[in-house]
Amino acid sequence: MEVTARAPGKIILSGEHAVVHGTTAVAASINLYTSITLRFPSPSETNDTLKLHLKDIGLEFSWPIGRIKEALSELDGIDCSTPTTCSGKFAESISALVEEQNIPEAKIALASGVSAFLWLYTCIQGFKPATVTVTSELPLGSGLGSSAAICVALSATFLAFSKSMSLDKGHQGWLDFGENELELLNKWAFEGEKIIHGKPSGIDNTVSTYGNMIKFKSGSLTRIKSAVPLRMLITNTKVGRNTKALVAGVSERTLRHPDAMTSVFDAVDSISKELSTIIQTPAPDEISVTEKEEKVGELMEMNQGLLQCMGVSHASIETVLRTTLKFKLTSKLTGAGGGGCVLTLLPTLLSGTVVDKVIAELETCGFQCLIAGIGGKGVQVSFSGSS
Amino acid sequence: MEVTARAPGKIILSGEHAVVHGTTAVAASINLYTSITLRFPSPSETNDTLKLHLKDIGLEFSWPIGRIKEALSELDGIDCSTPTTCSGKFAESISALVEEQNIPEAKIALASGVSAFLWLYTCIQGFKPATVTVTSELPLGSGLGSSAAICVALSATFLAFSKSMSLDKGHQGWLDFGENELELLNKWAFEGEKIIHGKPSGIDNTVSTYGNMIKFKSGSLTRIKSAVPLRMLITNTKVGRNTKALVAGVSERTLRHPDAMTSVFDAVDSISKELSTIIQTPAPDEISVTEKEEKVGELMEMNQGLLQCMGVSHASIETVLRTTLKFKLTSKLTGAGGGGCVLTLLPTLLSGTVVDKVIAELETCGFQCLIAGIGGKGVQVSFSGSS
Repeated sequence: MEVTARAPGKIILSGEHAVVHGTTAVAASINLYTSITLRFPSPSETNDTLKLHLKDIGLEFSWPIGRIKEALSELDGIDCSTPTTCSGKFAESISALVEEQNIPEAKIALASGVSAFLWLYTCIQGFKPATVTVTSELPLGSGLGSSAAICVALSATFLAFSKSMSLDKGHQGWLDFGENELELLNKWAFEGEKIIHGKPSGIDNTVSTYGNMIKFKSGSLTRIKSAVPLRMLITNTKVGRNTKALVAGVSERTLRHPDAMTSVFDAVDSISKELSTIIQTPAPDEISVTEKEEKVGELMEMNQGLLQCMGVSHASIETVLRTTLKFKLTSKLTGAGGGGCVLTLLPTLLSGTVVDKVIAELETCGFQCLIAGIGGKGVQVSFSGSS
Repeated sequence: MEVTARAPGKIILSGEHAVVHGTTAVAASINLYTSITLRFPSPSETNDTLKLHLKDIGLEFSWPIGRIKEALSELDGIDCSTPTTCSGKFAESISALVEEQNIPEAKIALASGVSAFLWLYTCIQGFKPATVTVTSELPLGSGLGSSAAICVALSATFLAFSKSMSLDKGHQGWLDFGENELELLNKWAFEGEKIIHGKPSGIDNTVSTYGNMIKFKSGSLTRIKSAVPLRMLITNTKVGRNTKALVAGVSERTLRHPDAMTSVFDAVDSISKELSTIIQTPAPDEISVTEKEEKVGELMEMNQGLLQCMGVSHASIETVLRTTLKFKLTSKLTGAGGGGCVLTLLPTLLSGTVVDKVIAELETCGFQCLIAGIGGKGVQVSFSGSS
């Protein structure tokens, strides 16, 4: 018997950076997924290890169950309906287990993700041998919520077989979780995110869990339902960013120019509010969809200008803007800026030929292009095989 | 005896577009000039025409004095100390005089400037034969105040020999005007600008007349003195703009998104105020000059982001931004946007090699580059020859 969960990535539609200074931001799921498959050995197999297979990068880690039991014996019998934070001696034990795997130096950024995996697995499933396989359509570390999608998909697969959930294992195809189940797996995913990011906002895992869109302000999250099917070109500039430095840069600029920056944040707040209103209002026909897309595009352009005003743009982002502007398409950076990903709104009536041309030109610059529907479903599971 | 006046062009340092919506803007003179020479024929010459020679473009216009007298006889004996508006039948007569010159179709944009010349000359000097030669370092119609510089320099040369001014004609080199004289010639220049632009703001001619910097808000102008010697690279994208359409675009966006745009204008207002404070505070040493330049650069970058938020940028402007950003230099559009000119701050400590590289790269894109000192002297005259 095996279970696969897929969890979506996310984009920030509006309000990144300004949200740190108290404004509203809007995040949305994208139909690009991280998929995780959990397989328990059949009774005839004599496998007694926990295996983690990162398929996309061809890495495999494995631990003898006895070794995990020894390191994390205190987790024996823990209640998986109560998400637990990995801290203190647990964090040390997990680190030791990860270090034993000799992760190649070039891939050392994976270590915290492997830790999150070990923590979530042991807390939820205990000391059972299993093979966990990870594949992802989301580029790592580019602001599309890849780590949250991993944590959500891990929690979903591990909880799918737990006593905390009663899912129809005979269901064919993708199965949605119930509200209570989503709440629980979101909490576990957040514990995983804490291992990876230290102090995550909780936005990425919440979007990945529930899908659709989320409006957030000063730490409080409101789920909103999109009534407009938006499609975006996501251009990954592949330029690495230092998110902490970018956030600090905006704060320093705010200290130097408090009046101007306060007004800038106010403008962002208005944009996020307007955007969430537009998105939630149904568009009955094609004309109103186009009108809405025009408004969304205009608000994206405005938000991008304000992000440039905050100083978080980058030459690579400007290149994407300039390229898409030639085709009369509007773009904005998404996430931390300073490189990372750029969104370009693809209106419903835009011809495929134009899309192909834009992508070809962006790829010539060395960028990676992905097309994504915005605001789709959150995490889902699918069972296969017989137990 | 001849007199030459030179009048500087201008840039908008901050606040373009937003100023239409009630915020503060800052304009400054640049040390690029329009020069106009007025020569009266010596008694031995039998010349009885008024000649206008546009040296840069190789065009010459001339009118028999008798023809001007016939067309504008009512101006006979007009008091040049009272600037007069060219309207009604005067405007018609001037148009007729200009039409008789058969200006080539490709240069028809010059017609209103030629009208302004005829009006200012006849009002101030009456019906005297003379040759007026115009040369300019300012590209025409690119937002650097070329028309205002022409009107100011025309007024200055024509008034220099009038009874309204008592200048030291024996002075060697450039001579400044007195306060009252500046006020008078600025008013006449404004009358010229009205012929060219219909409803000019009066900012361009005021900057060209007085030099230095001007803070303006809701129609009221305040002259400010720069204590920081700023140097800018001015890149003329040569992309023609429709200023009216750009201004209308910002107004329409403001109607669609009133809350966000009000905050954007507030941010611009704060930036203009801060900029004018920084510029007026003396910088005692090189370190404080560098600090000020950093602040000015940051405010320019912020203003540019806000202009992009207003939707008045253009692919050509983005190209300049991206190119200068590669060299860690900050830029902003100046004036109407949608093409036109872009300012790039050149810090005092920047090496000439870098400047050369930036210029070379911008010129490869087909742009014209000018280097200008900011906030220098206004209009000046120089006499030569003997009467």
